Amino acid sequence: MTLRTIRERKPLVHQITNYVVMNETANATLALGALPVMAHAREEVEEMVGLAGALVLNIGTLSPHWVEAMVAAGKAANAGGLPVVLDPVGAGATRYRTDTAKRILADVSVTVLRGNQGEVATLVGVAAEVRGVESMGAGGDPAELARSAGRSLGLVASVTGVVDHLSDGERVLAVANGHELLASVTGTGCMSSALTGCFLAAKPDEPLEAAAEALAAFGVAAEDAARDAKGPGSFHVGLYDALAALDPETLDARAKIS
Amino acid sequence: MTLRTIRERKPLVHQITNYVVMNETANATLALGALPVMAHAREEVEEMVGLAGALVLNIGTLSPHWVEAMVAAGKAANAGGLPVVLDPVGAGATRYRTDTAKRILADVSVTVLRGNQGEVATLVGVAAEVRGVESMGAGGDPAELARSAGRSLGLVASVTGVVDHLSDGERVLAVANGHELLASVTGTGCMSSALTGCFLAAKPDEPLEAAAEALAAFGVAAEDAARDAKGPGSFHVGLYDALAALDPETLDARAKIS
Amino acid sequence: MTLRTIRERKPLVHQITNYVVMNETANATLALGALPVMAHAREEVEEMVGLAGALVLNIGTLSPHWVEAMVAAGKAANAGGLPVVLDPVGAGATRYRTDTAKRILADVSVTVLRGNQGEVATLVGVAAEVRGVESMGAGGDPAELARSAGRSLGLVASVTGVVDHLSDGERVLAVANGHELLASVTGTGCMSSALTGCFLAAKPDEPLEAAAEALAAFGVAAEDAARDAKGPGSFHVGLYDALAALDPETLDARAKIS
Repeated sequence: MTLRTIRERKPLVHQITNYVVMNETANATLALGALPVMAHAREEVEEMVGLAGALVLNIGTLSPHWVEAMVAAGKAANAGGLPVVLDPVGAGATRYRTDTAKRILADVSVTVLRGNQGEVATLVGVAAEVRGVESMGAGGDPAELARSAGRSLGLVASVTGVVDHLSDGERVLAVANGHELLASVTGTGCMSSALTGCFLAAKPDEPLEAAAEALAAFGVAAEDAARDAKGPGSFHVGLYDALAALDPETLDARAKIS
Repeated sequence: MTLRTIRERKPLVHQITNYVVMNETANATLALGALPVMAHAREEVEEMVGLAGALVLNIGTLSPHWVEAMVAAGKAANAGGLPVVLDPVGAGATRYRTDTAKRILADVSVTVLRGNQGEVATLVGVAAEVRGVESMGAGGDPAELARSAGRSLGLVASVTGVVDHLSDGERVLAVANGHELLASVTGTGCMSSALTGCFLAAKPDEPLEAAAEALAAFGVAAEDAARDAKGPGSFHVGLYDALAALDPETLDARAKIS
Repeated sequence: MTLRTIRERKPLVHQITNYVVMNETANATLALGALPVMAHAREEVEEMVGLAGALVLNIGTLSPHWVEAMVAAGKAANAGGLPVVLDPVGAGATRYRTDTAKRILADVSVTVLRGNQGEVATLVGVAAEVRGVESMGAGGDPAELARSAGRSLGLVASVTGVVDHLSDGERVLAVANGHELLASVTGTGCMSSALTGCFLAAKPDEPLEAAAEALAAFGVAAEDAARDAKGPGSFHVGLYDALAALDPETLDARAKIS
């Protein structure tokens, strides 16, 4: 029923994200029922964080000024007790991305780390292959990876894949919703991070549950969108329709969280 | 019949806008029948303005280099007698946005200020709440706000909402076209600013009428797009189809301008 | 059958491109069957190039830091023997764009130059009119322009228009696929450059053929997408569906390459 809360309160979700997906994550946030704002200037990020219910940091198209703004925004979120999501896009692909993700994790208390298996494995020091922004398969069991990342980094690790695994270092939840067409559209991982921010804003005291519910909601919407899709283009469009049409009453029953 | 002129002349509309909506405002401009160009480098903005029929400045994702380019482009547009649209996205939400919008208004002779009620109220010193980029309701009558902004700022104020109000400080026009789905897609306000630029390029001597016609055209397209929409995704796609299908013959009759 | 190779190998195509089309070229790359990555930081471009099968440089929204990154990435691609595509968006419209395109051509060994007639004419010193990013018609025969550009610049010139002409300075190929709706959506030229990168990654030793096959594949997809389109919005969506649905078996027969 967290979705109902989101739609009633319409929390503002401040996103410092990459150029590729800004429109997409903003539209996913709106379709779900929350309000997005994109602001990256060092001059305003702290003030904008003060208006928001959650902060989402995404390193998909990095550059030094943006990194400074992400760290400053993250610290302001921590000071205000706001939940912070980090999406370490492409960590493992280049040293700059890996180092930046590690720096944010060191300087900011991150609530949920949402990444693919290769990205998360990289950040806990497990060998992994990341080609560009794609995980090419990382050694080991994803549930164990999530637990290990949750424990060693002191956060909720949200490791997405065919089945998603989330852990706070002790409990592990698996989310089995979703559709293979998600892999054919760029930014669907980033959208799931944005939606994680929306759910955290509505349920800040239970980040593991909130993060799992976000992935379940996104996965259910993907299942709905896939039904009438003719390919990645119409699936992408249908995803926003499906997010907006999500029914809080039936969502919990359709969520495959275990 | 301004739409006919746009389609015949295909004016170039130079847009210095935010990362979230660049693709969307470019596509709305093309769908209407004009030509968009996005160029923000200090090194080229003045030269690009020289090729254009109107300039649109939008502060949705600010940073210092961009602000310098906007001011330089605005001055070049003024020097060349080109109409300038300012979209003060998020003015009122942070000091940086408010100050930047005020600086542009001080340094550049703006033809049309297109914003929501909270943004425009902020810029004329009326108390308002802007959460991120959303107006959360500002005190006072929107028609009076438009008139007051038009008079005090010496421009055409185009205040959009459920009903839009535009004023040059004396006359007030109301535009009652549109659809609630517009609020579920990010960047629709920015699109309306881009289209305002298109109409100004075709009708530079009557900015109040041009700005009202732009909002009416966009609102009529939204009404058409909403007819077959299943949600925000399909509505967004349908909006471009509807803009391209707008019929100059019937548009004037469908426009609810009073 | 190059499409089959692309889908089997899923080459990574590193794109340093403009803000307007990043999402679109990434999605076109994914829909075709390759993997896109967008990375522009000076700190990481060389390392990212090392993971890629091709590099695409696009100057659609320039600024100085991006130009430095493009040159650095281009040199790294040359050192690694990677094919490089240059899309000189708006060359001819402003001196900054013309000079930047020339600088990249001077500092980087470009494999394929993909532009419209006005842009390519500008770069070989032929009088041309470029309004924003649109070619307003350049003097001369496009086949001759392609040949002359190929010869004088020492690369494959891929000059797109109603009929596309490509040349390595000796042979000239014409590609007659496509649809007029392509002109109503922003970034379709940029998409064709991204797809050229995909085909080059799969067929690096025959750049003239690879570039022609890319344009034919994109043109065939456009023909398919146009069939059910109601306007530019639905055409745009259908383009991704059609790219994903391209059949390697029938593509060669449908390609109008002569």
